[in-house]
Amino acid sequence: MLEFCMLGTGGTLPIPDRALSSVYLRVNGRGLLIDCGEGTQVGIRRLGWGFRCMDGLLLTHYHGDHCTGLAGLLLSLEKAGRDETFHIWGPKGLKRVVEGLCVIVPPLSYPVMLHEIPATGGELDAIGLKIRAFPVDHGGIPCFGFRIHLPRSAEFDPERAKALGIPMQVWKRLQEGETVRAGGGIYTLQDVAGKERKGITLVFSTDTRPCETLRKYTRDADLLILEGMYGTEDKRPQALKNHHMLFSEAAEIAHEAAPSALLLTHFSTSIEDPEAYLEETREIFARTWTARDGEIVTMRYPKDEEPAWISLF
Amino acid sequence: MLEFCMLGTGGTLPIPDRALSSVYLRVNGRGLLIDCGEGTQVGIRRLGWGFRCMDGLLLTHYHGDHCTGLAGLLLSLEKAGRDETFHIWGPKGLKRVVEGLCVIVPPLSYPVMLHEIPATGGELDAIGLKIRAFPVDHGGIPCFGFRIHLPRSAEFDPERAKALGIPMQVWKRLQEGETVRAGGGIYTLQDVAGKERKGITLVFSTDTRPCETLRKYTRDADLLILEGMYGTEDKRPQALKNHHMLFSEAAEIAHEAAPSALLLTHFSTSIEDPEAYLEETREIFARTWTARDGEIVTMRYPKDEEPAWISLF
Repeated sequence: MLEFCMLGTGGTLPIPDRALSSVYLRVNGRGLLIDCGEGTQVGIRRLGWGFRCMDGLLLTHYHGDHCTGLAGLLLSLEKAGRDETFHIWGPKGLKRVVEGLCVIVPPLSYPVMLHEIPATGGELDAIGLKIRAFPVDHGGIPCFGFRIHLPRSAEFDPERAKALGIPMQVWKRLQEGETVRAGGGIYTLQDVAGKERKGITLVFSTDTRPCETLRKYTRDADLLILEGMYGTEDKRPQALKNHHMLFSEAAEIAHEAAPSALLLTHFSTSIEDPEAYLEETREIFARTWTARDGEIVTMRYPKDEEPAWISLF
Repeated sequence: MLEFCMLGTGGTLPIPDRALSSVYLRVNGRGLLIDCGEGTQVGIRRLGWGFRCMDGLLLTHYHGDHCTGLAGLLLSLEKAGRDETFHIWGPKGLKRVVEGLCVIVPPLSYPVMLHEIPATGGELDAIGLKIRAFPVDHGGIPCFGFRIHLPRSAEFDPERAKALGIPMQVWKRLQEGETVRAGGGIYTLQDVAGKERKGITLVFSTDTRPCETLRKYTRDADLLILEGMYGTEDKRPQALKNHHMLFSEAAEIAHEAAPSALLLTHFSTSIEDPEAYLEETREIFARTWTARDGEIVTMRYPKDEEPAWISLF
């Protein structure tokens, strides 16, 4: 199971009840943040999933609305008693940005490790997720989208276990991923693996024009979280100038990628009620939703050939 | 008239409905901020007094809860179309702190001027206020309190005006501070000044132990805004260790200084309801209040020998 909370759904500037961009992902009690705009630490406090269990932060890019909450976040982790390493991934310039923002942060009780993502993107692992960072088009500055995959182990095949003479008493431990010594052999789940099973795939990408990498990495995902910076066609000149997307453009990306759902976020302050544009957007991609600050979404492994279950439905 | 809004009343970390330390002062439509913790820009937006009219920021010190909102504030001023100089005053190290926090801020549409306050304090003028920065005791780091005075012109003396032969038609302009040419002479209010009149004095000082400078500069002020970091006597060891004050200690300072009112702010996250400690605190200083986020206080010039009128009463 993968859960996430839309901590902040605002773009550019925060407004009352709409904090700046941030998503809290949770898998097996461990947390990972995507972006950290102003308001993130108070959003986490309101959510109640905790600071201490948070292992890292992915930064899409270094515009203020995506990283002004960083110093506060690190201070909150400190107060929560974190002592394990905290990892931060981001585009080129990460060290300069973190050092700058942390000019007012005293030495921390835990190590912070920085991982600069190459301009062409790259792969990284965090809290059990396989994540592919891919470059997007935000007007010439380095900016990434993230394709986030929660893998699932293959089915346990009792016939193979029997054939290998593995006693039934240790089957459960094998299923849970343990390496087991039994009947003179050493076995892992791999040795008794049956049918492969699909995991869960989520794509997060805001602050981009529609582009080839976005089309490529959104394909066949279960859920897309894309930006709905502007609601209406008359805002196209702003979208082009500021390198953002209209609701309709995000929906076109979803229409091509065919996920189970599209969740829009990163709304311009000029949008009072994002839901007002849903009806029109759903004409392009029917399974579109608009996120609200504090909204929690759960994604569960699919059954057989079905798509992953998403609590939006 | 001097108005202020308690934008954030939280210390150390923000919690839902209690943003980090910040006060918005307003005189004649011009704004000045004291401190700028995370949440300040959204507090200003909620308040509605505007960004563009804000001329400067006083920083007491560089702990995160007092300055993490700086980059966001500067970005909000930019979006509001500010083109006049924005002034920032703060202790030694100001340039390093502002440059660090602004690592993610692109070149701004308005100049930012930095004014480092000497370790011993100093005087500064902003939005018609005469401000004395005085050093306080926050554990060895440079930290200032501010004694803020809104002066008032002397009374207009009609007898002096008549004696000088100034025609009645221009009295009003003289009263409003204009330099007036009349009957062959050039006059200012100074020439027709009668009785001196008291202005309004407000002291803002959080993040300190009780100390001599605090006692000295709080004397005879109309209103004190002091910290109520901890509510109860059993928190004295923390107050000593972290260089903060108990409610009772702030009230003792007020008892000595004898202002019209004491407003407590900068509450520890461990304090759920600051009002719960009011009754006890009022035994030391009866005219004590606890601030809430978004609370607006108005101070008006006194009538005759009365103290300034404060909307808390």
